[in-house]
Amino acid sequence: MSLFITFEGPDGGGKSTICRTLAGELQATGYQVLVLREPGGTPIGDQVRQVLMDKANTSMTPHAEFLLFSASRAQLVRQTILPALSAGQIVLCDRFFHSSFAYQGFGHGLNLADLQQVTEFATGGLHPHATLLFDIDAESGLRRRQKPGLEWNRLDDYAVEFHRRVREGYLQLASADPNHWYVLDASQSYERVLAQARQHIALLLQNQ
Amino acid sequence: MSLFITFEGPDGGGKSTICRTLAGELQATGYQVLVLREPGGTPIGDQVRQVLMDKANTSMTPHAEFLLFSASRAQLVRQTILPALSAGQIVLCDRFFHSSFAYQGFGHGLNLADLQQVTEFATGGLHPHATLLFDIDAESGLRRRQKPGLEWNRLDDYAVEFHRRVREGYLQLASADPNHWYVLDASQSYERVLAQARQHIALLLQNQ
Repeated sequence: MSLFITFEGPDGGGKSTICRTLAGELQATGYQVLVLREPGGTPIGDQVRQVLMDKANTSMTPHAEFLLFSASRAQLVRQTILPALSAGQIVLCDRFFHSSFAYQGFGHGLNLADLQQVTEFATGGLHPHATLLFDIDAESGLRRRQKPGLEWNRLDDYAVEFHRRVREGYLQLASADPNHWYVLDASQSYERVLAQARQHIALLLQNQ
Repeated sequence: MSLFITFEGPDGGGKSTICRTLAGELQATGYQVLVLREPGGTPIGDQVRQVLMDKANTSMTPHAEFLLFSASRAQLVRQTILPALSAGQIVLCDRFFHSSFAYQGFGHGLNLADLQQVTEFATGGLHPHATLLFDIDAESGLRRRQKPGLEWNRLDDYAVEFHRRVREGYLQLASADPNHWYVLDASQSYERVLAQARQHIALLLQNQ
């Protein structure tokens, strides 16, 4: 068996922490689990991540931004995700191409059909089996990001209106494909969101 | 008036030196000229260039390679080339998207229609007014690259068979669009190739 689950949503919704926590729990019960994050997840992807997150790169155009995410993604799919799925592992990925649709598509206003076309090329058509959306309103998400010790990057600097469009975009993507998306209310307590995510992944494993 | 000319061909054919020399000559006669190179040409593009040229990145997939070139290109078009053309300048670019068609398409075997589609997205449909192809056989080109003092990068390390396909690809692109391509025999002396390139650009300027 192999299972590819992506974790999506604005930063500040807890998806990264919950992704790592659930991976540890699954490993403890004997599953082979690979946890990845985007952009990055490979040495080349990590170099691309540095360019994307560099706060000095204020002049980056949305097109270049999307193509850099896509380059990191193409490397991750071929070097890491496909071999892991072939070996029967569970792959949990903190962000995947839906992040680009939400941020560069709905956020920056790039044409969604164009993004889908480039993504097909980048990923070779790989889609996750399921996507968990950690939904939280833009203001609450950004407020949670401002806690000391958390990384604050170039994309966090976009105006709150941008982050509102990103959230709406995610909700549209989820409602257009309810068989693959599971929406969690990430404004609840961390324990509650974790429990709901855990339960949904258990269901996915049962139905394999 | 504005004019956008790209310089293409294998490394070792003299195109970079001739590009800079002709730019200097045009500037000396009063033209406003911008000389660019790919990948790079912008601060963000130069960061991407480092990732592309890094000899440690031997595991880079052709898809990621192409998307990184495209990201650098998207940034260059919007930040630099379009504003310069709007201001009536002559833009000479040492490599542009035809390099990707030749290297990642003909060289690596990626589907040319896919590359064209992603390129339309990256460049917003911008095409050069003319392309000069510095044609030289793969062995001679590589031999010239091995002179001391010249940069030797990750792409030079590909097998000679790869560079043969690149050359054939360039010739196919040129013969498919003879109104926009001008093929120079770069195995001739430097002075002779320079004179032919100079004459062709003078013609292009006359016909503006």
